[in-house]
Amino acid sequence: MDTRPIGMFDSGIGGLTVLKEVKKVLPNEEIMYLGDTKRFPYGSKSKEAIVEASRNCIKYLMKKNVKLIVIACGTATSQSLDILQKEFDIPIIGIIEPTVRYLQEHVKSEETIGIIATQGTIRSMAWEKNIQEKLPNIEIKSEETPLLATMAEQGWTNNKVAKYTIKEYMKCFKKIDRLILGCTHYPLFEILIKKELSKKVDIINTGEKVADYLKKYLEDKKIQNSNKIKQFTIYLTDKETNFAKLAKQLLEQEIEIKEAKF
Amino acid sequence: MDTRPIGMFDSGIGGLTVLKEVKKVLPNEEIMYLGDTKRFPYGSKSKEAIVEASRNCIKYLMKKNVKLIVIACGTATSQSLDILQKEFDIPIIGIIEPTVRYLQEHVKSEETIGIIATQGTIRSMAWEKNIQEKLPNIEIKSEETPLLATMAEQGWTNNKVAKYTIKEYMKCFKKIDRLILGCTHYPLFEILIKKELSKKVDIINTGEKVADYLKKYLEDKKIQNSNKIKQFTIYLTDKETNFAKLAKQLLEQEIEIKEAKF
Repeated sequence: MDTRPIGMFDSGIGGLTVLKEVKKVLPNEEIMYLGDTKRFPYGSKSKEAIVEASRNCIKYLMKKNVKLIVIACGTATSQSLDILQKEFDIPIIGIIEPTVRYLQEHVKSEETIGIIATQGTIRSMAWEKNIQEKLPNIEIKSEETPLLATMAEQGWTNNKVAKYTIKEYMKCFKKIDRLILGCTHYPLFEILIKKELSKKVDIINTGEKVADYLKKYLEDKKIQNSNKIKQFTIYLTDKETNFAKLAKQLLEQEIEIKEAKF
Repeated sequence: MDTRPIGMFDSGIGGLTVLKEVKKVLPNEEIMYLGDTKRFPYGSKSKEAIVEASRNCIKYLMKKNVKLIVIACGTATSQSLDILQKEFDIPIIGIIEPTVRYLQEHVKSEETIGIIATQGTIRSMAWEKNIQEKLPNIEIKSEETPLLATMAEQGWTNNKVAKYTIKEYMKCFKKIDRLILGCTHYPLFEILIKKELSKKVDIINTGEKVADYLKKYLEDKKIQNSNKIKQFTIYLTDKETNFAKLAKQLLEQEIEIKEAKF
């Protein structure tokens, strides 16, 4: 048993979709969540800028004495995970490996898998590389959807702008078997995405896959927390945003936000 | 007389709205246009990243033997102009000073002026500082509109997404006298913006103000070009974008695009 908290970070509110799923599956785990809102959005920044920002997030969380770190951000996972796993001694889990693990268990051959993500993620080819290494026979169709994360941070997830944006972005996914939401902000648009796709399409919320992976990981390593803890703490590098309002809606509870200075 | 070209840069297609206005007023001037599409968007990047990108754009254009440089980008003007004017010997003109000059000539006291721009521009307070220095009695109402530049680069300037986005962003500008389009991408939404505002509102396309300012500047310094030149050249740091298609629509002519490597 290890009662220390789990550290988790994203550029903004996106990672809360991961936090939400982790809380469902691991209700006893304490989570320290860091939203690097000062540097939002990660999706259009250079690889160097994302590695630097992620490195600083990890350092901040390590000072809080966390037992492992979840990169609850698609862009940071695709651009910085490999590099930072080598730099730090702490276990670091991104959103790609847990999702690929799920695909290995469920995908039949000859499937077509769609991926939507930020510019940085799509151009890194990280999803393609990781999926094709394990599942060489499936077809992958990826699309940059650069407006969605910013729209989510504005709280525009169910207005007309969001509706028509999703309609436009989904046009090229008419013949797919699964769609990976390759940015943790995107589950906020899940209702709209569902409406545009065939009912048979498996829409993959990476947060769910991270939660399942994490549960197994903690059990295997025997570092789960068996004490009853209800608390999670949210730190933001810039508090002057819509975060508090949106987080309250998403997590359906009152939240307290602390400032992280770096 | 100086027959050397004018250098102009932006992160993407936005600056072409400036190029278009300059071509109208100064048909004999040759223009070298650099679109730093590899680093688009500037609007959400750090000040350091924008200064660095702008510095490299200026160096690239100086090697092309230009006689002066126009920063045809709101974010680069607001974040880097002051710094780079001190670093380089060549005259550098941004979009703020020409617009403030126009305001000085036309604004009556007690006006309210709206400004829409990227996150970087709004947070820099550059418009407020420059306007209030010359016109201390007017009221300024500024709003971040972070989706618009990306939308313009996607070519979404007249679809339903653009329409409802503009409707949403214009809600807070019901009682203004003028609206400054503080990012050079925004004139691409001018028709939609006009529909949302009272007919009396002066919608300020900064490209027009830059063109007028530049004409006077070249005449004063006696460095205008009196030869008949039709040509402008476009260089992009990343050619894999919608740029060519959008530029053709905007400039209403066939264009050739060259690659700029840096």
